[in-house]
Amino acid sequence: MHELTRRSLSFMIGIALAIGAATAAWSVETLQDVMKRRGLTEKDLLAAAKTYTPTGGRDEYLAFSSGGQSGQVIVYGIPSMRILKYIGVFTPEPWQGYGFDDESKAVLAQGRVRGKDIVYGDTHHPAISETEGDYDGKYLFINDKANPRVAVIDLHDFETKQIVANPFFKSEHGGAFVTPNTEYVMEGTQYAAPLLEDGFVPLEEFNDKYRGGLTYWKFNKEKGRIEPENSFVFELPPYSQDLSDAGKKDSYGWGFTNSFCSERYVGGIERGRPPFEAGCSSKDTDFLHLTNWKKAEELVRAGKVRQERGMYFIPMEQAIAEGLLYLIPEPKSPHGVDVTPDGKYLIVSGKLDSHVSVYNFEKIMQAIEEGKFEGKDPYGVPIIGMQDVLHTQIDLGLGPLHTQFDAKPCVAYTSLYVDSQVAKYDYCAGKVLDKISIHYNIGHLMTMEGDSVSPDGKYLVALNKLAIDRFNPVGPLHPQNHQLIDISGEKMQLLYDMPVPLGEPHYVVAIRADKLKPAVRYKSGWDSRTDRRSPYKTRAGREKTERSCDAEGKCTTEVWGTVIRSHITPEIIEAEEGDTVKIHLTNLERAQDEVHGFTVYGQNVQLSIEPGKTASATFVADQAGVFPYYCTEFCSALHLEMQGYLLVRPKGYQAAEVKMVEGTVYTKEDYETQVKTNLETQAVINQVVAYITSHNFKDFPTVVALVEDATDQLGFSEGAKKKSEAAAAKEDWQNAMLWANQWWQYQVKAADLGLRAKTYLEESGAQKVR
Amino acid sequence: MHELTRRSLSFMIGIALAIGAATAAWSVETLQDVMKRRGLTEKDLLAAAKTYTPTGGRDEYLAFSSGGQSGQVIVYGIPSMRILKYIGVFTPEPWQGYGFDDESKAVLAQGRVRGKDIVYGDTHHPAISETEGDYDGKYLFINDKANPRVAVIDLHDFETKQIVANPFFKSEHGGAFVTPNTEYVMEGTQYAAPLLEDGFVPLEEFNDKYRGGLTYWKFNKEKGRIEPENSFVFELPPYSQDLSDAGKKDSYGWGFTNSFCSERYVGGIERGRPPFEAGCSSKDTDFLHLTNWKKAEELVRAGKVRQERGMYFIPMEQAIAEGLLYLIPEPKSPHGVDVTPDGKYLIVSGKLDSHVSVYNFEKIMQAIEEGKFEGKDPYGVPIIGMQDVLHTQIDLGLGPLHTQFDAKPCVAYTSLYVDSQVAKYDYCAGKVLDKISIHYNIGHLMTMEGDSVSPDGKYLVALNKLAIDRFNPVGPLHPQNHQLIDISGEKMQLLYDMPVPLGEPHYVVAIRADKLKPAVRYKSGWDSRTDRRSPYKTRAGREKTERSCDAEGKCTTEVWGTVIRSHITPEIIEAEEGDTVKIHLTNLERAQDEVHGFTVYGQNVQLSIEPGKTASATFVADQAGVFPYYCTEFCSALHLEMQGYLLVRPKGYQAAEVKMVEGTVYTKEDYETQVKTNLETQAVINQVVAYITSHNFKDFPTVVALVEDATDQLGFSEGAKKKSEAAAAKEDWQNAMLWANQWWQYQVKAADLGLRAKTYLEESGAQKVR
Repeated sequence: MHELTRRSLSFMIGIALAIGAATAAWSVETLQDVMKRRGLTEKDLLAAAKTYTPTGGRDEYLAFSSGGQSGQVIVYGIPSMRILKYIGVFTPEPWQGYGFDDESKAVLAQGRVRGKDIVYGDTHHPAISETEGDYDGKYLFINDKANPRVAVIDLHDFETKQIVANPFFKSEHGGAFVTPNTEYVMEGTQYAAPLLEDGFVPLEEFNDKYRGGLTYWKFNKEKGRIEPENSFVFELPPYSQDLSDAGKKDSYGWGFTNSFCSERYVGGIERGRPPFEAGCSSKDTDFLHLTNWKKAEELVRAGKVRQERGMYFIPMEQAIAEGLLYLIPEPKSPHGVDVTPDGKYLIVSGKLDSHVSVYNFEKIMQAIEEGKFEGKDPYGVPIIGMQDVLHTQIDLGLGPLHTQFDAKPCVAYTSLYVDSQVAKYDYCAGKVLDKISIHYNIGHLMTMEGDSVSPDGKYLVALNKLAIDRFNPVGPLHPQNHQLIDISGEKMQLLYDMPVPLGEPHYVVAIRADKLKPAVRYKSGWDSRTDRRSPYKTRAGREKTERSCDAEGKCTTEVWGTVIRSHITPEIIEAEEGDTVKIHLTNLERAQDEVHGFTVYGQNVQLSIEPGKTASATFVADQAGVFPYYCTEFCSALHLEMQGYLLVRPKGYQAAEVKMVEGTVYTKEDYETQVKTNLETQAVINQVVAYITSHNFKDFPTVVALVEDATDQLGFSEGAKKKSEAAAAKEDWQNAMLWANQWWQYQVKAADLGLRAKTYLEESGAQKVR
Repeated sequence: MHELTRRSLSFMIGIALAIGAATAAWSVETLQDVMKRRGLTEKDLLAAAKTYTPTGGRDEYLAFSSGGQSGQVIVYGIPSMRILKYIGVFTPEPWQGYGFDDESKAVLAQGRVRGKDIVYGDTHHPAISETEGDYDGKYLFINDKANPRVAVIDLHDFETKQIVANPFFKSEHGGAFVTPNTEYVMEGTQYAAPLLEDGFVPLEEFNDKYRGGLTYWKFNKEKGRIEPENSFVFELPPYSQDLSDAGKKDSYGWGFTNSFCSERYVGGIERGRPPFEAGCSSKDTDFLHLTNWKKAEELVRAGKVRQERGMYFIPMEQAIAEGLLYLIPEPKSPHGVDVTPDGKYLIVSGKLDSHVSVYNFEKIMQAIEEGKFEGKDPYGVPIIGMQDVLHTQIDLGLGPLHTQFDAKPCVAYTSLYVDSQVAKYDYCAGKVLDKISIHYNIGHLMTMEGDSVSPDGKYLVALNKLAIDRFNPVGPLHPQNHQLIDISGEKMQLLYDMPVPLGEPHYVVAIRADKLKPAVRYKSGWDSRTDRRSPYKTRAGREKTERSCDAEGKCTTEVWGTVIRSHITPEIIEAEEGDTVKIHLTNLERAQDEVHGFTVYGQNVQLSIEPGKTASATFVADQAGVFPYYCTEFCSALHLEMQGYLLVRPKGYQAAEVKMVEGTVYTKEDYETQVKTNLETQAVINQVVAYITSHNFKDFPTVVALVEDATDQLGFSEGAKKKSEAAAAKEDWQNAMLWANQWWQYQVKAADLGLRAKTYLEESGAQKVR
């Protein structure tokens, strides 16, 4: 510490001198002033420089975090630690229209449990799809602990595409983990329950009829979907299976799943029995499960595995007989098993033991080959002797939980829950290298691509369970705290505290940002959930509203509409009380970020329609009345005017012969004034165009896209201008004026785009080319 | 620019020299290395220093942002721009248990529209409660544009307490705005619709039967609730009313509401008519509405206002006759009216005009007193001449929208949507002072306490509508971008880009953080939604499960339970198929942040039970079966063991005489081994206690709280120890061992707390006192 202080002092003096002489024009405060005012140390300044990302800057990694009980996935950037997106997965979320449009409702319906819609999930472990053990950035998987389900998110558009509900499990925790080529997604049970029986089975029959299990969901990479019909499930003993990891490289073909409560204790504190927490942690060891998925797959393909509930089911007896299943003792109540990048070792932490245990996969294979077991568990599963296969045990501290890996060989990081620390160590040599305190009580931890075959090192994120005093207080329910730690040097260095404002994440995975290639728009008329052209795709000018009734007199009013800056077509929808109303809207925009929304008063409708997307809403207009609708996105200067009315007539309504009376009447003079304005506006646009085209704008893809979009708007403007002139020719000044105004509206949109492009060029140092 | 470059150069060289000589021990990279590697300029470094907040640091301001279509409120800190919380308001959100526990379901049910549950909202304008025009930090209000409603959030615990649904409106936008002592919360319509008729009224009768309106919701500050029965509504012309602001100081007692589409145009692009966007922006002016709420309140109190739908209703004729309502022309399609801090001026921007118009309130009053009007609108409302009451107009640029104020007299900031800029100007002198480009297309903007009588200046947040190229791409649906701008100097300076990951915020308000005094726990057994002791409060040892059936044979299984690290009491709940199951859980913890959750497989239950809270879940157990439940928060090292089973027996089930068989049997030796461990653990705890008590821990409130909590856990430990010893005395080694283990579990929790306290003391530089 002393040396550090001395060195820092000289550093500080250096800064003070330097800045004293250079009060910059753009600030009244110098860097030194700011540091003093905000109480920042030099260490803080360095951390700030390592994380601060100026406008337009990109993060090096994207992290995908479980959203815990929010049922969502959180996406954030590293090192800026800015949250970029919440993705709706198991919980409806209206901003995205998730669970509010027909297309996503169909996805959520796949996740029904026992016939019921489930409107949330307890998301735990995200996993990125892999190719040869490396993250390929194509898909993300995440599980639901509360209602055993796994979801598939496409990283092409960051949308949830599929949910599969596990037909056997009543609880799970250890999912999702992928095999090295995403052949399978692993999902393990947590609390034992009858697997093949959904009815009541008394707890007295726990040992005999309650079971654990492990599902290998088959993933079809081409289709981007899980295939339940090609998936298989291992029946396991009624231990509480916990996390899994798939073997890689040397250990390819195997899966590893640990467990707690191998005591098979059943609580009942209300009856005077000690609680689960005591009975489930009384033995010194629990069991690590080994499953040979490669061999199981062969049996499935050979037709040797029975089918149950639309999947393949491997009873314990079969798994034992075929050599698919083994156990190894592991220290007390472990909370994770992690395979080293080379696949040679497995690292397990018993959370009530102070060690991490490093198992040697080669030794495990040797024991199996030699048939060297120390016995069998009560269900006949062979138990491999722990001492026979241990590489080493390392004393790290209290409450070791999860492990992640560095780019440097043999270097790993393990979270210490009770000690509130991260330990860095050499698992080959069995030596602790460094420790850092976190704030407070860390669960999972995560390094960059840290569970792949080639971890990147660089950063580590500590997923702390308690924030307590780290942030401004916001009531009894605190945010979580993800702390970013620099692991590029020998000593770990705390860089940043990120509050997680919604949900309690369990695990996070981070991928190099440049591996992701998300789309910025959809193909025209796209159903984003099925990833196919929507049958409701509607082109400009082809909008229509139709009403039809079936033989029983049930009627449907169906709208094929469009949205574009700044109007919804149609602007008036008429229906009759009791009609089913179906509204399909296609966003005609091609411009990046030009999203439109759609809501109708009182109908629980909220669509998010990104450029190109077609989204649908279905509801029953069960009451007559006036129901305003509008675009819910601030999409242009005239966004408030992007409105309409759903008019629901009572049954048998007879319209009176009343004509629409215009609120305001326009004259030839009004028309001419508007045209004058338009010509002036065009002059401004021409200036902006001249600026852009006189610079090397084609070197800036953002500007090229803006210019394309502006050209579109000017095209529309031309159309409105023609309508205006046609009306003027007929001396219909009302329509001449209104269409002239619409012509101007399109001009304003073009000007808006042009000015945005001009700002971009100015700030990006574009060069004058002519 | 040239001077800047020269000065900066010397600054840079200074830093380089300083740091070259001082490679600190804690980093392999110098500040210069980092800046080079990350492409940071000195300006970036200064911005980083102004925003970076090290671990444990506090933000100066808390911002409350609408969550747009997410139906939530977002809370973030300024200047760190870290999001601290999403508060569920109109949309169910399971992490908070919002819409998943009985207590919050009752709040959401208040927001039913036309008898229907509405599961989202389009939140627009948050407002903090005020006392004498200053933010008092007690309550937050926010509106729902899609389904006209206003919610009340208590800033004591950041929870939504009340939702009121407007019984007259079918659309609104301009809410919530408060009067200077929070006497009323203002809510204005947007799209006109019949007010007193919920049925069908043809659009042809738009001018005669469609109406706008403005509600003054009476707020009872003592009760913290809106009182609809003491609230009143103004009937207004069918212009699209937009935003409001309440008069303050000189203009106290008046409300101001602007509007667009005073053309009263009705679109119909599907019929060949020009769209709303053209017809609603054809006139050069729209109308600013003035309402005298103070005088209206007197009329209400005097019994002169008629009652409708449980509120008071003021027809236009009455408002005109009583001098409660006036109009003033305002430039084309305005998007905000903002009263200056002294209440003397109103600033209006017509978004299709390049000026802001500054109106003089004194001149307005003078015109009214003198009866000097330029005419009446089609509904008989007197129109005050614009030129008679204008103070000045200032040409700012394209698309001016909203205005906020600085601490410096006469200084205001207005957002320019089309120009993508913020303009700073002197509204007294009518002079532009500065402009800054933002990225891109700004809607609202916000300065610190910027719409109160005493704005703080310092920071400005630009609520940009398009992010486009500012962040790593995350698919076609982009985050929003809130840009933080330093306004402390003469020139505005961009500091930070904050992506908003969920929802599209419309408006934000920011309050000095030290004005907020949120609670960290609830009083024991608290119903947080009614803010009363819950009738279901349950104390430790008083847990019970009861089953009762009514005369019709409908049965209820009701549980009064508790949660504490790390068990739920009861651990087994038995019910019969068809039972209504009611579960009430009280969190017995007192420790800050020690939240427990609760979920049951397949039942759509998810509770967030903060310390002290009692939360309830009700569901029908309509299927027999085994339903695991567990605590959904990672609350302690043994959180996975915080589990239980709901067992639903089929009707008429006859239990067989089967006794529970223990999965693992313990011996005297096991007991003695566990006791030995416990004594060793106690020795470790004693060491930690010695460390803490030998330091000035009482100077650290965080540590005092941790120590109290650890003392509790050691007390529990004592109880388990006694049970263990009692069982051992009877040679019941099974229970002796299990209770000894439970004794150890409590020790682990105490150790965990002690270590957290020790870390805190070490990092906070605690002094040794003995």
